Amino acid sequence: MTSATLTIDLGAVVRNWRALDAMSEGETGAVVKADAYGLGAAPVGQALRDAGVRNFFVATAGEGMILRDAIGHGLRIYVFSGHMEGDTDDIRAASLTPLLNSVDQMLRHVEALPGAPFGIQLDTGMNRLGMEPAEWSAVRDIAIAQRPALIMSHLACADEPDHAMNTQQLEAFRAMTDGIDIPRSLAATGGTLLGTKYHFDMTRPGVGLYGGLPFVDAEPVVTLDLPVIQVREVPQGETVGYANGWTAQKDSRIATVSGGYADGLIRAMGGKAALYAGDTRCPVVGRVSMDLITADVSALAQDPTSLQLMGRHQSVDTVADAAGTIGYEILTQLGQRYGRTLLA
Amino acid sequence: MTSATLTIDLGAVVRNWRALDAMSEGETGAVVKADAYGLGAAPVGQALRDAGVRNFFVATAGEGMILRDAIGHGLRIYVFSGHMEGDTDDIRAASLTPLLNSVDQMLRHVEALPGAPFGIQLDTGMNRLGMEPAEWSAVRDIAIAQRPALIMSHLACADEPDHAMNTQQLEAFRAMTDGIDIPRSLAATGGTLLGTKYHFDMTRPGVGLYGGLPFVDAEPVVTLDLPVIQVREVPQGETVGYANGWTAQKDSRIATVSGGYADGLIRAMGGKAALYAGDTRCPVVGRVSMDLITADVSALAQDPTSLQLMGRHQSVDTVADAAGTIGYEILTQLGQRYGRTLLA
Repeated sequence: MTSATLTIDLGAVVRNWRALDAMSEGETGAVVKADAYGLGAAPVGQALRDAGVRNFFVATAGEGMILRDAIGHGLRIYVFSGHMEGDTDDIRAASLTPLLNSVDQMLRHVEALPGAPFGIQLDTGMNRLGMEPAEWSAVRDIAIAQRPALIMSHLACADEPDHAMNTQQLEAFRAMTDGIDIPRSLAATGGTLLGTKYHFDMTRPGVGLYGGLPFVDAEPVVTLDLPVIQVREVPQGETVGYANGWTAQKDSRIATVSGGYADGLIRAMGGKAALYAGDTRCPVVGRVSMDLITADVSALAQDPTSLQLMGRHQSVDTVADAAGTIGYEILTQLGQRYGRTLLA
Repeated sequence: MTSATLTIDLGAVVRNWRALDAMSEGETGAVVKADAYGLGAAPVGQALRDAGVRNFFVATAGEGMILRDAIGHGLRIYVFSGHMEGDTDDIRAASLTPLLNSVDQMLRHVEALPGAPFGIQLDTGMNRLGMEPAEWSAVRDIAIAQRPALIMSHLACADEPDHAMNTQQLEAFRAMTDGIDIPRSLAATGGTLLGTKYHFDMTRPGVGLYGGLPFVDAEPVVTLDLPVIQVREVPQGETVGYANGWTAQKDSRIATVSGGYADGLIRAMGGKAALYAGDTRCPVVGRVSMDLITADVSALAQDPTSLQLMGRHQSVDTVADAAGTIGYEILTQLGQRYGRTLLA
């Protein structure tokens, strides 16, 4: 193995989607934005299409173009950022369905592409994307007359089931949309797990498909193995890495592996994360450098040829904990230098 | 502007190289590993080649292949990870010069590609890559007989000029290489700035070319503008973003821009970084999400169409401070969704 190997289990992505689909009241879409959370929009989109997904969600029109090339025509691709200035050509060419976030966007869309499909994104309290209640009141009748494909909103605190914000947003969404005869969607992965009253006509899981929390029963999707470049004896008292970040408390064997923060292995995990050789934990020592990580392999009887960061012993979320962040960031930062192996 | 725009000033990269070259005693190479620190190995490599760079450095043989395609034959490409198992075909095909890190690597190289060029990487105390003094003693005569192209080592604490480790590594390097009639290299950007006794026959700046510290006089290279998707009023007491991360202390105007941690805008900068509209600072409020950032634009007389993260008012290192990391990580994490504009 010359470069680090990222193994992506597309079968697990599909099984995670099926598990969430089985929980969902209505239809189940799939969020494949950010290059399918770093795992590749094309292969992930194709696998989910073949499994029966009919509604995909991306962040930008540019992502929509790439996904359309991969999955072909006939399936719906929603764009969360809506119809921004400069998006018209992409939206038309790739038959995208922008989720319009404001009256400005609605005017732009109706003027530029009259009769073209769209959805509506409402703000129910997150104050990030979507029309405010007052804005929505002003355009709602005109909008509904155009038969939007979907009316949706997004929960700010769905990863915390007991947060009061969840009920508050649910009520706001109902107040803004009850009685409208258009499909509705409120729940991403977290919302899907909150229960059926959050499901409406369509759920749209993202992180759960890729094996991340809050979907605790998700099958793991990614395995990351880092090849060892060399192993050395580091006598007690010697230091390892930038700024002498680690000092050997006893005579140690230190392996240097190929993979670093340029590969998305967040620098903040230095000195906190661990790599695995089989079942043996090998603590990361010193700082994570741009292309290299050092780990203490003293516990091993034999020098390893590779060490595992994610896989059997550590999930995306274990690594996120070590880096002081969330699994979503670990996934979306997975780098371009890895050799990628796709499992069907 | 529909997607965020990353502007890369290749002219500034060249001028930074020339400034470091003017300081260097011997030859000046260029480190273009990690896709030229996130800025694109092909365009950066070509610009530096045209400016007169003759020696390039990459992290892995895979990167060497890509760079060779971009810059053509005849120039030297060194590979820091040396000759790893599985690298032979790439090294031969792209005429790469591996920096051999161990006796194992030397045996592999000489057996697989007898007579092919190589360099030697020595460990002078960082304990990360390179041959230890004892290992070097054992193979040194055989190695020198094969006329390596370069003997090099790497400093662990060069960003701190007064660190005792610098002198210690300099002395170790001298002890291991004095009297050998082969070109030597010890200094990256930090080492170049430490003064001529660290320069030997070749310096090999990396981060300084791309406008990052410790080269304080570097010209900035990157500008990052994020398009505004929408702007909304957020009344006093309302919250913004995931986990209600920010609460408005007064009635505010909040802009949502396209760009998030999936674009390498590290999540840890949420609530600490700022964006600029012209000369006006607009604090980032709430959490950085995967594809979106929210900023307080209350101070602006007019709604902005885009906000700037890096450029006239903030360097790579300012942003790094906000994210609790170093400029190197900000650069190498710059994402794939940006529209990229190259300035000559």
